[in-house]
Amino acid sequence: MKVCHRRIIPVTPYSGGTSLEGHFASTRGGVCIDFCRMDQILHLHEDDLDVVVQPALGWETLNEELGKHALFFPPDPGPGAMIGGMVGTGCSGTNAYRYGTMREWVLSLTVVLADGTVIRTRQRPRKSSAGYDLNKLFIGSEGTLGLATEATLKLAVRPHKQSVAVATFASIHAAAHCAAQVVKAGIPVAGIEILDEMQMKFINAGGSTSRQWKEAPTLFFKFSGATTTTVAQDIKLVQAIATSSSGPASSANSFVFAKDEEEMAEPWSARKHALWSVMAMRRGPDDHLWTTDVAVPMSKLPDIIEATKADIVDNGLLAGICGHVGDGNFHAMILFNEAEKQIAEAVIHRMVKRAVDMEGTVTGEHGIGLVKRDYLDHELGMSTVDAMRRLKLAFDPQCLLNCDKVVRVQEPAVDEVKKW
Amino acid sequence: MKVCHRRIIPVTPYSGGTSLEGHFASTRGGVCIDFCRMDQILHLHEDDLDVVVQPALGWETLNEELGKHALFFPPDPGPGAMIGGMVGTGCSGTNAYRYGTMREWVLSLTVVLADGTVIRTRQRPRKSSAGYDLNKLFIGSEGTLGLATEATLKLAVRPHKQSVAVATFASIHAAAHCAAQVVKAGIPVAGIEILDEMQMKFINAGGSTSRQWKEAPTLFFKFSGATTTTVAQDIKLVQAIATSSSGPASSANSFVFAKDEEEMAEPWSARKHALWSVMAMRRGPDDHLWTTDVAVPMSKLPDIIEATKADIVDNGLLAGICGHVGDGNFHAMILFNEAEKQIAEAVIHRMVKRAVDMEGTVTGEHGIGLVKRDYLDHELGMSTVDAMRRLKLAFDPQCLLNCDKVVRVQEPAVDEVKKW
Repeated sequence: MKVCHRRIIPVTPYSGGTSLEGHFASTRGGVCIDFCRMDQILHLHEDDLDVVVQPALGWETLNEELGKHALFFPPDPGPGAMIGGMVGTGCSGTNAYRYGTMREWVLSLTVVLADGTVIRTRQRPRKSSAGYDLNKLFIGSEGTLGLATEATLKLAVRPHKQSVAVATFASIHAAAHCAAQVVKAGIPVAGIEILDEMQMKFINAGGSTSRQWKEAPTLFFKFSGATTTTVAQDIKLVQAIATSSSGPASSANSFVFAKDEEEMAEPWSARKHALWSVMAMRRGPDDHLWTTDVAVPMSKLPDIIEATKADIVDNGLLAGICGHVGDGNFHAMILFNEAEKQIAEAVIHRMVKRAVDMEGTVTGEHGIGLVKRDYLDHELGMSTVDAMRRLKLAFDPQCLLNCDKVVRVQEPAVDEVKKW
Repeated sequence: MKVCHRRIIPVTPYSGGTSLEGHFASTRGGVCIDFCRMDQILHLHEDDLDVVVQPALGWETLNEELGKHALFFPPDPGPGAMIGGMVGTGCSGTNAYRYGTMREWVLSLTVVLADGTVIRTRQRPRKSSAGYDLNKLFIGSEGTLGLATEATLKLAVRPHKQSVAVATFASIHAAAHCAAQVVKAGIPVAGIEILDEMQMKFINAGGSTSRQWKEAPTLFFKFSGATTTTVAQDIKLVQAIATSSSGPASSANSFVFAKDEEEMAEPWSARKHALWSVMAMRRGPDDHLWTTDVAVPMSKLPDIIEATKADIVDNGLLAGICGHVGDGNFHAMILFNEAEKQIAEAVIHRMVKRAVDMEGTVTGEHGIGLVKRDYLDHELGMSTVDAMRRLKLAFDPQCLLNCDKVVRVQEPAVDEVKKW
């Protein structure tokens, strides 16, 4: 029997918040089912730039509501992601270059520990150095240390003006060189994304945008600012860099930018729907999509992308690549059927090894889970993984929560661990 | 006998770094003494925007060196602070509003644990979601979980143009209202600091700057951008808000800004030397300075500053107040002699209680140490402090490192704990 109770939301004398309880009840209907869904916005503290929410709230729904108050929540992972999952993976997205990842945008969590204890990690100030940072411990712990039932999120003021520019290049190296120049010039772009020619081809084939894109390595720049003039200035500075022929790489073959916010929606949605456009390329019902990511020190990104692309092509696989070039992080989205599974696995294995060899990480934003747990020893060393195990055992000695994910607690069978 | 060995710095095929070993050896002289000091810059990876350093390196020395490469390390606590201490306290400073705190600028730490195990928390990518965030666990742990012997720090591109503006107001509330309007307008200021009239008086009396300042509640704005035009535009936008008479508070009584970078040095140094100017007010050799901080949700900052100021005046104490208004964090710097010690303690006790009641924290950037450890239960609840204790015991079961600081491991005597 499923019993749902409507919770009373306490309003303390200092909360000063606008209760948004009922927002979903009124738009989605149903008494009580809304609270079972745990998808409520509980309090918006507009003057403090924070909001208290439940874990099953989607970040897009949250931002729709916040937009009415000229605010927004920066972490923007794939469409459909929810706050609880975003806490679990310590996610990021295209805004991470400017705003940082989920770790920087959670002020406080209410967490149920393995033994049933309920704790609140912090109060609501934007800054605190009071004790160990429990907040950051749970963010990215993939449900292995506790279950988050409520989150207080930091908010940003929504940029008053935004725009997008799209530039195409002869090679991944040329595109990455341009991105590095923009970063070094200190131009405050809101995001820099890189997509390879295959990914652009899939976007065209998927038809999710009305225009046809050049099928070449492409940079998407996002701009934001307080005024139209500021944004226009930033675009001009980036355009000058992209179209100059100085440096080791050739300049952009094309550079177009959106004239207003309406025009920017389409290019940016092309980037945001990269994943779905690869899925649309499935050759039949037996095709699966393997999406994986790694991150390396910034300057190594073009090398690892080129090496991984060559490996994909050499092995006859179909894949799109897109990356957060300002963070040295990229995704490979590989199509495979049962016959190609082992080939795909081997390609990803080599991609991960390459990242570790380049002083990078086996995952920049997707997390470890089961598949990548045995790579951690290679990336960080056994002593560091042992330190992580101490944390797991301190919080969940009986291994009740997502046991053996992230770090193994039980000794694996010898043939279970992949050869490095 | 003190034995120092010059360490061989390994250069891996992928480090690509510029070894800066010998930088201090050449400027400060001495073979081997430099390594005993642990104050070296080991590798600067210019293209990756990161640097590997030792813990006794000062942030100002680091920034002098980085300035030659048009880079900088944003966390800017009090003059003289060193990277190891900054890691220990999870420090911040005037740049935290724009750039975040120490937590956001450390990529990796080499840490010696209580049992002698040496671990490295992460490799060098700017982003990672590989396992638990050990990095953040050690930052702010005040030496109670391990000793950091090396740090890889994230770097930012040094803003090409900077400026400072100073505005005076009739009250703390009026100044805070102006700051809130600037934040809401989305103007990307690099810092907003608030100083009370007493603090301005001390700066005048201390004579550390050549000009005399108005002795009124004052906002210091820091601006930075890619071009002179961008910076000038931001100043204009802030000036318009500060001098408009709309809103509940009166507008600024004065608004002046630096015309170039040379002119900005003086006002900003006035802010950065606030602490020393209070020390210069000591009435005699028996006077001590108690510097403490709390943080509250942003909108509560003027209320808590006004209440604390009134308490200080009512108790006949001399104190300056300055705050990071964009973070809801402020410092009280209180002069006291032996006869006033208990009075000062009581004033600070009430300031801390006020912060907790306003959903704030007992310390925004100074840390817990011994004095504030018993406040943690009140701020976070006993279950949360117990969770912190689990961490301490997992990493230092014998309580060898800074025992009983941050969280108590041993039961205190009843009369040792202050009444809340």
